Amino acid sequence: MALVYPLSRIRQILGEDAEYEGSYEGEVTGIAALSEASSGDLSFLGNPKYKADALNSRASVLLLPKGFELESGSGQLHVRVANPSFSLALICRDMESQLFPKPAPGVHPSAVIEPGAVVSPEASVGAFCFVGAGAELGACILEAHVSVGRNAKVGDGSILFPRVVIGDYCHIGRRNRILAGAVIGSDGYGYEYLDGAHQRVPQIGRVETGDDVDIGANTTVDRARFGSTRIGDGTKIDNQVQIAHNVRIGKACLVVAQVGISGSTELGDGVIAGGQAGFAGHLKIGAGAMVAGGSAVTRSLSPGEKVRGMPAESMMLFNRIAVLQRRLPELFKRFDRLEKSIGSSGTENAPTEK
Amino acid sequence: MALVYPLSRIRQILGEDAEYEGSYEGEVTGIAALSEASSGDLSFLGNPKYKADALNSRASVLLLPKGFELESGSGQLHVRVANPSFSLALICRDMESQLFPKPAPGVHPSAVIEPGAVVSPEASVGAFCFVGAGAELGACILEAHVSVGRNAKVGDGSILFPRVVIGDYCHIGRRNRILAGAVIGSDGYGYEYLDGAHQRVPQIGRVETGDDVDIGANTTVDRARFGSTRIGDGTKIDNQVQIAHNVRIGKACLVVAQVGISGSTELGDGVIAGGQAGFAGHLKIGAGAMVAGGSAVTRSLSPGEKVRGMPAESMMLFNRIAVLQRRLPELFKRFDRLEKSIGSSGTENAPTEK
Amino acid sequence: MALVYPLSRIRQILGEDAEYEGSYEGEVTGIAALSEASSGDLSFLGNPKYKADALNSRASVLLLPKGFELESGSGQLHVRVANPSFSLALICRDMESQLFPKPAPGVHPSAVIEPGAVVSPEASVGAFCFVGAGAELGACILEAHVSVGRNAKVGDGSILFPRVVIGDYCHIGRRNRILAGAVIGSDGYGYEYLDGAHQRVPQIGRVETGDDVDIGANTTVDRARFGSTRIGDGTKIDNQVQIAHNVRIGKACLVVAQVGISGSTELGDGVIAGGQAGFAGHLKIGAGAMVAGGSAVTRSLSPGEKVRGMPAESMMLFNRIAVLQRRLPELFKRFDRLEKSIGSSGTENAPTEK
Repeated sequence: MALVYPLSRIRQILGEDAEYEGSYEGEVTGIAALSEASSGDLSFLGNPKYKADALNSRASVLLLPKGFELESGSGQLHVRVANPSFSLALICRDMESQLFPKPAPGVHPSAVIEPGAVVSPEASVGAFCFVGAGAELGACILEAHVSVGRNAKVGDGSILFPRVVIGDYCHIGRRNRILAGAVIGSDGYGYEYLDGAHQRVPQIGRVETGDDVDIGANTTVDRARFGSTRIGDGTKIDNQVQIAHNVRIGKACLVVAQVGISGSTELGDGVIAGGQAGFAGHLKIGAGAMVAGGSAVTRSLSPGEKVRGMPAESMMLFNRIAVLQRRLPELFKRFDRLEKSIGSSGTENAPTEK
Repeated sequence: MALVYPLSRIRQILGEDAEYEGSYEGEVTGIAALSEASSGDLSFLGNPKYKADALNSRASVLLLPKGFELESGSGQLHVRVANPSFSLALICRDMESQLFPKPAPGVHPSAVIEPGAVVSPEASVGAFCFVGAGAELGACILEAHVSVGRNAKVGDGSILFPRVVIGDYCHIGRRNRILAGAVIGSDGYGYEYLDGAHQRVPQIGRVETGDDVDIGANTTVDRARFGSTRIGDGTKIDNQVQIAHNVRIGKACLVVAQVGISGSTELGDGVIAGGQAGFAGHLKIGAGAMVAGGSAVTRSLSPGEKVRGMPAESMMLFNRIAVLQRRLPELFKRFDRLEKSIGSSGTENAPTEK
Repeated sequence: MALVYPLSRIRQILGEDAEYEGSYEGEVTGIAALSEASSGDLSFLGNPKYKADALNSRASVLLLPKGFELESGSGQLHVRVANPSFSLALICRDMESQLFPKPAPGVHPSAVIEPGAVVSPEASVGAFCFVGAGAELGACILEAHVSVGRNAKVGDGSILFPRVVIGDYCHIGRRNRILAGAVIGSDGYGYEYLDGAHQRVPQIGRVETGDDVDIGANTTVDRARFGSTRIGDGTKIDNQVQIAHNVRIGKACLVVAQVGISGSTELGDGVIAGGQAGFAGHLKIGAGAMVAGGSAVTRSLSPGEKVRGMPAESMMLFNRIAVLQRRLPELFKRFDRLEKSIGSSGTENAPTEK
């Protein structure tokens, strides 16, 4: 990390409540866990049970909870704060803005802006970007190789990482973060079998994202058959997620990596879908429902329902079944014994497994 | 949607059989479901059971089945046709060709065509496309950022969406639709463990697609170890599908999103693979076999076989097992009761679950 | 395949130990399996049980094991070697270097190299590449549309296929092969729920790959929250794999297509993860552990442990359970009969399945 971060900046961020003990004269050049830190690193004790790690840490600056007893090593600065994790987050946020500075507004000379596109003077359009006719870019950032289709819109404060594709007519809201390689507005997958072949059903709708939406790297979101595929305000989507045509995702949902959501399924607000979960089409997933990673959801879910499995069932039932499945070998043995002990003529031997 | 679609065009498409009642003076500016339509929208009644929605719909133009009784609202046009869904499809197809017009032939000045590549004068090559030496492009469309490798071929009528990659030596058939971000012709994943390390096995084959093949966004198809990885005529592949080296997919298959097919597995004609299904390597999947979403296929399948589960078994067996698994808690209870009631000295208590 | 490969080259590669019988006067223009080969093809008999295929093969050149009896057809050359598979590999490796020649060093005129980037004079930078400020490129190859972020490094001998994205600050080791569309260094997926919304946790770490790492097409590797997401020397990662922030993968691991590894999980050296397997976060997977395809790993694994299932259990237990599950219908029937034959008043009827 090309990080050179002065202590004075940390003092400024943590404010007057922080207590300092010991001394470190250099600059902070990295952040690391207690046991992995070396000279120049900032580290922190989030949980007092790791006191031994703190004691042995070679970090140059250590964030500790107030009142935590630990002697600072030579050339080591201890900073005691009310909540080390929170203080760390404040510092990280500041470091992030230094490490990843916003590019200056302007259009890179290599970019192609088609006639009829409207680009805000506050937008930053990177190398090799393509912006189609009729597109509208607000005060947003397009990194290298981004393609924005005809009549598409990108709202203020959004950032599109390298080679994101926004399809024709799609609308990206404000303050979206769309990571590298994501494709927004690919064709929906719809065919009718006619005359001995799969005929493509026209896909003339678009994708619409709300404000403060994050979309992960290489994720794909298909345009609607007609109308819109929608992603609600504040929803955060991880990498390699597949969202089919006409899906509607509510607000503040979390959709973890490699989830697949089939056509026309609706997720209410605050739904959480664990990694690699799959949803069949045309389902209604109630607000606040939780789907465990790897589950296959084949029915609609009530609000707040928690499910797991393939097909997904209530988490409680899944857990009971999982335990009992591991006891199947024992059950079969007990059953064989019981049958034998009874000597019941009414029971036959089990057919041999083929 | 920047759609402005005159009623006269709809009358022209639907022909003389359509019956008109009521009137709407504007243009059609969108398509929406009955309950979501607003002024300017075209909507349709596909199923008579949604009569209430039709009655309350604010759509300006409504496609209804012939003979269906419904009074048109003020400023609302009712159009009665033999098959509203089919008529809608005709209109959508026409709208699509207007919304997504084909680009004019020609090579964008920013594109790089290497010496020795042959580009049809009818081809359209978009901004920042790269076409390698010896490549041959028919009358096809390359949108922005497409990369076509050395000695690769793309057939007439195919469209490659933004930043598709066609690897060296790969052959794309006619009328393919390859969606954004797809990679055709990446290295197969093959290693031999020698001298304490995984040595890469050379992958010198190619990918060959038939005619009328669709390939989804961010899907990957690996080149063969030698010979060809093949996708048959009329097969439709969804987003984020992984197709390994030397796989052979027959004609008119449907491969839904996030499916993974391991090396050298063959799918016969008309196979349907549901979303997130996985196939082990070197299997033969008979023509017309159906694999439910999320299944893990670990053995070859007979033609027409329907399977589900992990590992996949016959759909019927899977369904029976799924029902009985949910009854495991009951079975264990019944068994405990039975053992007790018999007081059999020949049975022991179940070992405690660890 | 635009392959024209002279027999003299094969003789040179196979050396003096090879025995030749029969004759073929042309050049080798392809490689194919025995049963699929046609004139001009080289084929090989890896396993003597395919003798019939060898007998009927139309291949022009056939690699056979020494001492294997088979009469060569007219115009057919038989080459007997100690190990036909190994000889084939040697030939393929040589063909590969001809079919996919390394581009000459130099920067394509269309590429954008930002001020402050350092590019080795031995590097080859393809069309439309973008190299950010402070980046360092060794003697590596960047194919078309590659984006290398600010302060990122790419080691000697590495090849980045079309439109690979290397994020800011990430370090790629030596002799890596990163296939088309891979994204290295996307944001980690980390949020804290505060003030009624998911607040993004800053992700200021990087990705670090060792030497001889392969990464598949459209795979995504997230940057660390802080510190590094790490991939060890000699590890081979397939297409569409998702590796979350702060994951650490050891040396010589095999991670097959569509695997997902959640945040902070560690894989020891030599771990093998089958296709579509998923790993929960913060696990420790012991060296040499093997996870079957499609499994969901929800607990840490001991070195060498072999697991399968959802959730993953020991392979042996999984296999036993899989067999017994298929016998559940039979068990329920036997149980009903047993209950009946006993006529136990202490047992009730099973509740009807809903």
